[in-house]
Amino acid sequence: MKALIIAAGQGTRLRPIGDTKPLVQLLGLGLIERVILTAKKSGIKEFCIVTGYHGEKIREHLSDGKKYGVKIQYIKNDQWTRGNAVSILKARDYFKESFVLLMTDHNYDSRVLDQLLKTKIAKDECILCVDNNPQDHLNIDDATKVLTFDHRIETIGKDLTDYNCIDTGIFICNPVIFDALEQSILKGDEGLSGGIKILTKRHKMRYMPLGDNFWIDIDDKTDRKNAELLICNKLKKDTDGPVSKILNRPISLRISKILLKTGITPNQISVLSFMIGLAGASLFFFGEYFYLVLGGIIIHIHSIVDGCDGEVARLKLRQTKYGGWLDSVLDRYVDAAIILGLVYGYWSINGDITIWIIGFFALIGSFLNSYTSDKYDSIFRDGDMTKRSKFRMGRDVRLLLITIGALTNQIPIMLIILAVIANYEALRRLIVFRNKLDDGMQITDREFTN
Amino acid sequence: MKALIIAAGQGTRLRPIGDTKPLVQLLGLGLIERVILTAKKSGIKEFCIVTGYHGEKIREHLSDGKKYGVKIQYIKNDQWTRGNAVSILKARDYFKESFVLLMTDHNYDSRVLDQLLKTKIAKDECILCVDNNPQDHLNIDDATKVLTFDHRIETIGKDLTDYNCIDTGIFICNPVIFDALEQSILKGDEGLSGGIKILTKRHKMRYMPLGDNFWIDIDDKTDRKNAELLICNKLKKDTDGPVSKILNRPISLRISKILLKTGITPNQISVLSFMIGLAGASLFFFGEYFYLVLGGIIIHIHSIVDGCDGEVARLKLRQTKYGGWLDSVLDRYVDAAIILGLVYGYWSINGDITIWIIGFFALIGSFLNSYTSDKYDSIFRDGDMTKRSKFRMGRDVRLLLITIGALTNQIPIMLIILAVIANYEALRRLIVFRNKLDDGMQITDREFTN
Repeated sequence: MKALIIAAGQGTRLRPIGDTKPLVQLLGLGLIERVILTAKKSGIKEFCIVTGYHGEKIREHLSDGKKYGVKIQYIKNDQWTRGNAVSILKARDYFKESFVLLMTDHNYDSRVLDQLLKTKIAKDECILCVDNNPQDHLNIDDATKVLTFDHRIETIGKDLTDYNCIDTGIFICNPVIFDALEQSILKGDEGLSGGIKILTKRHKMRYMPLGDNFWIDIDDKTDRKNAELLICNKLKKDTDGPVSKILNRPISLRISKILLKTGITPNQISVLSFMIGLAGASLFFFGEYFYLVLGGIIIHIHSIVDGCDGEVARLKLRQTKYGGWLDSVLDRYVDAAIILGLVYGYWSINGDITIWIIGFFALIGSFLNSYTSDKYDSIFRDGDMTKRSKFRMGRDVRLLLITIGALTNQIPIMLIILAVIANYEALRRLIVFRNKLDDGMQITDREFTN
Repeated sequence: MKALIIAAGQGTRLRPIGDTKPLVQLLGLGLIERVILTAKKSGIKEFCIVTGYHGEKIREHLSDGKKYGVKIQYIKNDQWTRGNAVSILKARDYFKESFVLLMTDHNYDSRVLDQLLKTKIAKDECILCVDNNPQDHLNIDDATKVLTFDHRIETIGKDLTDYNCIDTGIFICNPVIFDALEQSILKGDEGLSGGIKILTKRHKMRYMPLGDNFWIDIDDKTDRKNAELLICNKLKKDTDGPVSKILNRPISLRISKILLKTGITPNQISVLSFMIGLAGASLFFFGEYFYLVLGGIIIHIHSIVDGCDGEVARLKLRQTKYGGWLDSVLDRYVDAAIILGLVYGYWSINGDITIWIIGFFALIGSFLNSYTSDKYDSIFRDGDMTKRSKFRMGRDVRLLLITIGALTNQIPIMLIILAVIANYEALRRLIVFRNKLDDGMQITDREFTN
């Protein structure tokens, strides 16, 4: 399916932060870049953009879309001072089948479009995503109100007094929309809502509720601030461990926002974090308390920065499988280097061989902890299980333990604790899922590789 | 979707190996159990079985299907000496929508039904999977021949001379089949093909080609032998490493066939294999050559037996996510125990601390090798990549290295080789996929966990 994006208007209220509204920056991306990359997540690969005011700047910036991994076509609307409906009508010849209709200034959770694309609609219908539980940040006076009845939209407009939800500006349309818009323009209404009203009268305008997903209309500086907050809040993941949640995430988010402005890629951040980790680990090899303290601090910094690659990737809508993989493998090497450093350093000073055996168990536990994490989290995410135990034993906890052990000069005890709880957790996960996973979940050959 | 299984006939040619055809054993499962569990893999959870000859034995054995994780209803056909069509007609009141129609004595790859279920058919059509490249083992005289034209079946029958493929007995039917069968019976043809012929005349009988998937009709002892061979050959996986392929798999398959008869579960085999591995590893702790040799041999046995859990699970169509997970985690503990044992044993005799550092690297490499394996294999399986390098560095290779090192009393050199090639492989995988994975493969948050 193709998407039509309306980017013709002037957006005067955003003027103070940018002259060309679609290119106004929001967390490292222009507004229209966010719209394109969010839709791409839902599988949309072809875009038509209607440009008007400062159209050449937009075309120059986005070009043919190759750098986003999509195809972009442009449609020029010289009459951009007129309403939205005129812009959409310009695209008439490009859309002979159903298509996604999006606004430049609306930002939304990619799950919204996922759900919308799954909804079945008839050839003569359109469907709009509506928000029936608008958040505080929404400027109600400026919003387009919607009254729904049964499965369809009863009426729509900015001045409705009797309404039950808000237009999010995310549509799936069929070409019937063009005739409706034409009729509406003839009647003197040049807004998109005019065309929608005509469809509602024919009982051909349906809706899908937004649910728990987020959306936001960015019309001025305050909206942008709210959008930043909303998007950053989304980065706090339900799989975050306690240390990550309380100590690391608040700081790493601030660092990520700075990194966004530098243009550094998520994979470069992974490598940077890796090098910080190795630097900390190499200090441990000396074994003396001074180096332990220094190393411990650096490992804590590593633990924080390690969250930034994923954050920047998600903020820039640029997550890749490779990125996730690179990060995981490099983290495993840092884990190993840290434990080896601690063991070697302790042994070189105390000469006690037991530390090597303890180190082995700590290393095994660390690895198994990571090895089982992905599966553990995905099982919870798929909703098959009852609530996960509140304390998630993960890398954030392991690294904090190491920092505490180094700062207090208690390497053997810390490694023993690490070995016990990491291995205990790996075995606990095995036992917890013993019965729950065993039946009814047949799989392909894939799972039996090692 | 529900499935209808025809299990009413007598199956006289199978008499020498079993009195009740649907319960005749094939690699640890009755023929009808295989049909049910294979269909379950494609998501079918409700079955109607038409029984006739020895019907009470079948009902007694399968019961309500709970032990297979499915629901089973029975339909009695006292006139089981008559043709198939009569059996199918008995189920008329149970099927008001499209359903899967299967034969007890046909065994097939679960991918066949997966594909068939994806095919769209109209309410007045039926569709049959046909084999246009029959294998040598097929008894052509006894097979039902099919002539296709365009997207539909032109005609069908045992005595066709002009045909281009073979009926595999795997159907998706709509209730129109019942009327067609009734007409055919009135005309004196009581076979299923009679009804199909009537649909072909209305141009309402379509086909789907079998492709590379396997199927087999089991009518006598020779067929069963061929089916065993076919199914066992399928267990050789394209992700098998060189040692597994050449040394281990041929032996483990033999062991698996024996284990099948004992009723031991795949998870029990995983635990057994784990204990064998631990036994081998604990001998290594002694360090002396005699124990190394003994341990090396036991580790090789462990390496072979480790293939059996997956094999038995697949042979019994009982793979579970939990089973795959249990096996992986236990294997990681064995890997760790082996390396710890070798290192400790060597150190206790030679007192050289370097072996501990080498051991650390070997352990890291081992773990990372396993850690990246699943992803590596799945990327190839999804067909995104060009051919994988022929030498797959996996657990089979690592264990053989260890056995060779133990038998030749060359622990340090062997551990160094292991550390180098396992770590090299982990890094190679990172580099190979660097560019290929980086673009265009956006993912959900899931991948960024650690």
